[in-house]
Amino acid sequence: MIILGLDPSLSCTGWGIIRCDGARLLHVANGEIPTSTAAPMAERLAALQAGLVDVIAAHAPDRAACEEVFVNRNPQSTLKLAQARGAVLAACGAAGLAVREHAARRVKQALVGTGAADKEQVQAMLRVLLPGASIAGADAADALAVAIADAHSR
Amino acid sequence: MIILGLDPSLSCTGWGIIRCDGARLLHVANGEIPTSTAAPMAERLAALQAGLVDVIAAHAPDRAACEEVFVNRNPQSTLKLAQARGAVLAACGAAGLAVREHAARRVKQALVGTGAADKEQVQAMLRVLLPGASIAGADAADALAVAIADAHSR
Repeated sequence: MIILGLDPSLSCTGWGIIRCDGARLLHVANGEIPTSTAAPMAERLAALQAGLVDVIAAHAPDRAACEEVFVNRNPQSTLKLAQARGAVLAACGAAGLAVREHAARRVKQALVGTGAADKEQVQAMLRVLLPGASIAGADAADALAVAIADAHSR
Repeated sequence: MIILGLDPSLSCTGWGIIRCDGARLLHVANGEIPTSTAAPMAERLAALQAGLVDVIAAHAPDRAACEEVFVNRNPQSTLKLAQARGAVLAACGAAGLAVREHAARRVKQALVGTGAADKEQVQAMLRVLLPGASIAGADAADALAVAIADAHSR
């Protein structure tokens, strides 16, 4: 079972792929899809999708997972995030991938044992759970975390 | 010059295509892309995109236009709308279409002469501006209205 974890955002969408072999988790790949702040919105969204289509084609995941959407106090930030999320989810849907959503607290809980864990604790636990994985950045780390939480939730 | 007007929404995205021939506007086609409320989000977003890809392939628009996003008081409604919008804009971006955004008030003003016009006034004016056009529904009408506003704004 191959799981694609996603951390959608307009400026940089993180992705991470793990393989579940019974209770064992193996790191497959991770990365980030950045977009240019200078490009028009439609172009940035298309770039996110194109990057994700390549990831899906390369790794053929069985399912996908992302965090439940976070409603920011700033409506413009929420809109940008939700638009990026729409483009990312559409690419999954077009590839026939079901996308499960997990609350941010649940993701932290699955990795660290507490929903109040900070980013450093989550990243430290990723290094334990996926030893040797070279992680592309904070967004890729969040994507791997949600993939692991998805694996644990089954 | 062929303009694709869009009224993105998750439950039903309206589209309308007009041709500008100097100051003359001609109706080309319009329609609506509904999605099933029973389907998962990723599938619905993929269906919106697939429908729009067909429209773009059939009519080869030169550019696209939609209303500026409306921040609803209900954050969940805003999120659904923004996700649909993200999928729709990504399809435009992938087709190389620039998407211009117009404030809702400007669209009404362009059609009826006042930003406070109601839906009935806008639809009556559509029948005057695009005589003989058979309009698929309220979402298709809104999409044609934004296409006309875009033509007038040049």
